[in-house]
Amino acid sequence: MSGRLAAQIAFLNEADRLKQVLRATPLCDGSRSENSGEHSWHLALYALVLADQAIPGVSIDRVIRMLLIHDLVEIDVGDVPIHSANGTAHGSDATRAAEAVAADRIFGILPNDIGDDLRAIWEEFEAAETPDAVFAKSLDRVQPVLQNIESGGGSWIEYNVTLDQVEARVGTKVARGAPALWDHVRGRMQSFFGR
Amino acid sequence: MSGRLAAQIAFLNEADRLKQVLRATPLCDGSRSENSGEHSWHLALYALVLADQAIPGVSIDRVIRMLLIHDLVEIDVGDVPIHSANGTAHGSDATRAAEAVAADRIFGILPNDIGDDLRAIWEEFEAAETPDAVFAKSLDRVQPVLQNIESGGGSWIEYNVTLDQVEARVGTKVARGAPALWDHVRGRMQSFFGR
Repeated sequence: MSGRLAAQIAFLNEADRLKQVLRATPLCDGSRSENSGEHSWHLALYALVLADQAIPGVSIDRVIRMLLIHDLVEIDVGDVPIHSANGTAHGSDATRAAEAVAADRIFGILPNDIGDDLRAIWEEFEAAETPDAVFAKSLDRVQPVLQNIESGGGSWIEYNVTLDQVEARVGTKVARGAPALWDHVRGRMQSFFGR
Repeated sequence: MSGRLAAQIAFLNEADRLKQVLRATPLCDGSRSENSGEHSWHLALYALVLADQAIPGVSIDRVIRMLLIHDLVEIDVGDVPIHSANGTAHGSDATRAAEAVAADRIFGILPNDIGDDLRAIWEEFEAAETPDAVFAKSLDRVQPVLQNIESGGGSWIEYNVTLDQVEARVGTKVARGAPALWDHVRGRMQSFFGR
């Protein structure tokens, strides 16, 4: 029992490092970059508050669990900003391979039963096929749009991103899991870009 | 519909401010203070990973929802460190009154149905009577103990806290919702304090 609990605590202490992984998106007031720990909290809160925006068949509690662990691999791999010059690395085979190694290490700290469960939820998120994963991905894509609008441009300015690029890289994925949400946010985004 | 969605987004943008509320506890590596946004994420992950430590009758998914919103009032009131010179303010009538005003404002941003739900969960957490709230409080108390041990003392050193004080202020509450967890962590803490 003590060995099991020691493994659970070792994992939770390791997870603490996610608070130091920085993202391209700023906080709403633009004062600093968001980190992946607080981002994961914010997304889980998005799921709780925007439950009525989900496509049919979504379990919000499973989506919340998914969002809590979805970025843990960044402890080893870092965040790969979707709009950066390195944006082609986002979702590339090389990035996916590195993330799988990270998942082996990080979920492997846990007792097997818990680690296997969380690893399976993470893989479901990455595959983006089930309703839960599709909705979780929508929230992961829409939150930076709202943070960029609030902060006056955020990573769009830093990486010189156009409205069409946001539509292509982000909009289709948000619309897939939360279509009415994307209609609304797209309107805000178009106003922001001055159309 | 659009007004409803605008209220949901206004709440999520307001919640972003929790990422700037600093706590007395440092990150595990001691490099900086933890903020209440990333703390809320970490606690929700604690609930997910330490589910087998909960007293009977606990719904982990409800505990996770509770932990996601438990600190939102700190956006207005700030964090009141339990070990600080101002520690008597922790849980005082004045603090509780200020937090209730903050809850009115913050949950009041939401559409009534969602705001009322989250407000009720927050009040359940504060009352610490149901199994879900008792377990959630246990996690909220035990995480700083582990962060302080990892970081070499953290807020215990800053506020010159003794082992007996941690036992009295923290231990009883952790033990109430997760007795075996506290047995284990107390052992680590006693080693840390050199007994």
